[in-house]
Amino acid sequence: MEYYSRQISKLIQELSALPGIGAKSAQRLAFHILNMPEDAVEGLASAIVDAKKNVRYCKECFTLTDEEFCPICRDGARNHKTIMVVENTRDLAAYEKTGKYEGVYHVLHGAISPMLGIGPNDIKLKELMQRLQQEVDEVIIATNSSLEGETTAMYISKLIKPTGIKVTRIASGVPVGGDLEYIDEVTLLRALEGRTEL
Amino acid sequence: MEYYSRQISKLIQELSALPGIGAKSAQRLAFHILNMPEDAVEGLASAIVDAKKNVRYCKECFTLTDEEFCPICRDGARNHKTIMVVENTRDLAAYEKTGKYEGVYHVLHGAISPMLGIGPNDIKLKELMQRLQQEVDEVIIATNSSLEGETTAMYISKLIKPTGIKVTRIASGVPVGGDLEYIDEVTLLRALEGRTEL
Repeated sequence: MEYYSRQISKLIQELSALPGIGAKSAQRLAFHILNMPEDAVEGLASAIVDAKKNVRYCKECFTLTDEEFCPICRDGARNHKTIMVVENTRDLAAYEKTGKYEGVYHVLHGAISPMLGIGPNDIKLKELMQRLQQEVDEVIIATNSSLEGETTAMYISKLIKPTGIKVTRIASGVPVGGDLEYIDEVTLLRALEGRTEL
Repeated sequence: MEYYSRQISKLIQELSALPGIGAKSAQRLAFHILNMPEDAVEGLASAIVDAKKNVRYCKECFTLTDEEFCPICRDGARNHKTIMVVENTRDLAAYEKTGKYEGVYHVLHGAISPMLGIGPNDIKLKELMQRLQQEVDEVIIATNSSLEGETTAMYISKLIKPTGIKVTRIASGVPVGGDLEYIDEVTLLRALEGRTEL
């Protein structure tokens, strides 16, 4: 990119290394940033550095946070006896957006994948079992409905069952508003198996 | 976004303010950044700040650069008597990527748009006319083929013609590999008008 001067090229290169940002978007972003007021640019840069510098796992649920305990684990109004197990912090956020879940979470930071060589010890499973030594009523497994997510759900449920704690799995089926015609067969079969009486 | 801690929310918010980055992409980018090694994060942040801090207009062609003169204007091997007029630095980059243009550029930083209230004095037109006081063989107008681009091209050509300098306009027509069926009528008419003998 010798048609851009050195620092502009560097900026474009750094931006295009981010996921989902191709060469064209990186250029567009770079010129947008160059046209932003200087304090806005510094705000952006320090948001990046500050978040990275202070990010850590919540001591309770292992979500990414910048304090010792995340806002959810600190919240006394939540039901700390119901734990929803998710693969990552974004999945947690997805359930939080529904605004209807009142329990707490446990973030695994991954899923078991023999193909990728990710075993039970590579995710925060030991930490989940440790939490279950306190009083817990129910563990809701909300790992993804992928091969890895299902394997992980299976594994966790087998691990927890002997403790006598109730283990549930979120339903899988046809998405709301989904047109049957465009939904894959596996999902259709799941929806059939999971049918409920009306 | 109270389900993310403060600094993570701030980062997501800053990223989603960038053009073409929606809420979902901002989240994905934020977690990617949080998972990057610390020195890579600092590299990204300082690329942003450094580029912004040092960015300025090239004293010759007004492209964005971080030095007094841009790499193209400094290049003695280029033909400084042919000036291609473009709307912005990205358009310059697009022509540079062809690797076939050996002249220099003039970046207007916009186009005349009565609708948006952008007049000839709001773009680097005075600066172009000043450059023409040196020896110039040809001015190639490569503003976009939009209403504003065409208006600007027209305006510039009228301004330059009295000086006796040759003024040309890049051709508009059917893009290479373009399927006629999917091309708009204005372009098709342009392609017809601009037909050349074989």
